[in-house]
Amino acid sequence: MQTEASLQDQLHDFCGVFNDHLRALAPHGPSQRLNDAIAYALEGGGKRLRPFLTMVIARHHGAHESTMMAAGLALELIHTYSLIHDDLPAMDDDDLRRGRPTLHRQFDEATAILAGDAMQSMAFSVLANEPTADPSMRMKMVAELSRASGPEGICAGQDLDLAGLSNARNHQDVLAIAKHKTAAMFRASCILGGLAAGLAGPILDQYGAFGESLGILFQLRDDMLDETGDEEKMGKKAGKDRDAGKATIWSVDDSLSSRDVLDLAHRETLALIGQIDNKPPLLQTVCEFVMARSH
Amino acid sequence: MQTEASLQDQLHDFCGVFNDHLRALAPHGPSQRLNDAIAYALEGGGKRLRPFLTMVIARHHGAHESTMMAAGLALELIHTYSLIHDDLPAMDDDDLRRGRPTLHRQFDEATAILAGDAMQSMAFSVLANEPTADPSMRMKMVAELSRASGPEGICAGQDLDLAGLSNARNHQDVLAIAKHKTAAMFRASCILGGLAAGLAGPILDQYGAFGESLGILFQLRDDMLDETGDEEKMGKKAGKDRDAGKATIWSVDDSLSSRDVLDLAHRETLALIGQIDNKPPLLQTVCEFVMARSH
Repeated sequence: MQTEASLQDQLHDFCGVFNDHLRALAPHGPSQRLNDAIAYALEGGGKRLRPFLTMVIARHHGAHESTMMAAGLALELIHTYSLIHDDLPAMDDDDLRRGRPTLHRQFDEATAILAGDAMQSMAFSVLANEPTADPSMRMKMVAELSRASGPEGICAGQDLDLAGLSNARNHQDVLAIAKHKTAAMFRASCILGGLAAGLAGPILDQYGAFGESLGILFQLRDDMLDETGDEEKMGKKAGKDRDAGKATIWSVDDSLSSRDVLDLAHRETLALIGQIDNKPPLLQTVCEFVMARSH
Repeated sequence: MQTEASLQDQLHDFCGVFNDHLRALAPHGPSQRLNDAIAYALEGGGKRLRPFLTMVIARHHGAHESTMMAAGLALELIHTYSLIHDDLPAMDDDDLRRGRPTLHRQFDEATAILAGDAMQSMAFSVLANEPTADPSMRMKMVAELSRASGPEGICAGQDLDLAGLSNARNHQDVLAIAKHKTAAMFRASCILGGLAAGLAGPILDQYGAFGESLGILFQLRDDMLDETGDEEKMGKKAGKDRDAGKATIWSVDDSLSSRDVLDLAHRETLALIGQIDNKPPLLQTVCEFVMARSH
């Protein structure tokens, strides 16, 4: 099994190439302000864990590099737009994102809403126009991504998250929010990786189940970092979720300790990896990386 | 040529069927508040002119009814989401839409943003999952719709519109805003109608050019109604755009009168209809309807 250090190297190399492709998507539409806002968002950095997962799975199964990249770009566009909207004053009201002013602070609120809207369109445009994927593959990717980003995916997750402790009473409720808010996109990242390589049938479901479980683990770890993390490393204020009355495994009363819930999710993710026959060895390293991450 | 009265009847009949299909898209996701907000938006009525155009063209060229309906629903989902976001306090700050409280007044701002976001996903989901269209047709429709709704389509148009008179000095500038804000979706409506019937090549471009011209005419007429219209019929306050400093052919200084600009757009639309060989006779009636509409 590969070490976490080699994963960091691979993730770093991937980000170099991926970020170039992402920046190249900056639009040249008639509104300079909107173009600038989208370019600002595309240059914002981030771990790129979702497209990395897509790439790891797609490459292991022999996908075309360009198909894989299109899938990763579409996922990251959706993820980035969702963060822009989550940061808005009407939602989480955040001033900082990845150490820079949030889009509505750097530009204005209307432009942040429109930039997010436009980036969602761009995600589907990237998939629909990818010449190395046959139309049937492109359509499956659009269907999967639209499901993850719609009213049963991240939009529902964010709405449940905003309702916070008024909606969530125990760790099951917290996991249900994480499933939609975060895990839906991790699930889609893994499935799009498989689709990009032409996979179908049970192995796609297995990758999907792994992605969902990893996404839940990622969110639980995120909540833990919000409680205990290093503000400088995270590029955002610690304790903000708790102060905002968000439901996390640290804020709900439950028979299980927060650490128990995290360990359960960790074991479940490893078990799901174990069920996949022909898989990239890196999956387990990614899981340990998510479990151990400090920002 | 058919009369405007018979067009009204056909539009009315179409709306009956179309609205049933639209309502059936109300989601059943895990957030009841989000489900309710989307259902509220889908029940809001409206002229349904965009999907009607799709249907008129698609049916004339022998499209499958279900393909045509999917295209129309996707267009209306994008249109409806864009209105929800345009109405937000950070944008046009409207309290009324089609005679009812706007979504953020009826629910709250965060839910209105998320409902709009989710409806954009739903539009692409409807196209990607339409079983009567082959994958290649679905993909072309997704590509066209994402172009119309992205940073070179309605998002740019709305951003230019918000910049208003600081950006627009004459009627050419006003037409450029209308082209993106409104005409991009009319263009897509016509092209999706053609795609649903399997059309390709020059006739698609001709339908696209007609749609764009009709959309500009529609927007100019909308601006005129804002100046002079009947508040009760429109379901919104008159003079609001002018008060908000929006750029319209009524608000810019220009060598051409507002009426001249409108008449030019009208004649251009009719000329573009004239260039299409095998076309539904109803197109001209739709053009006259747009020119004459009072709300």
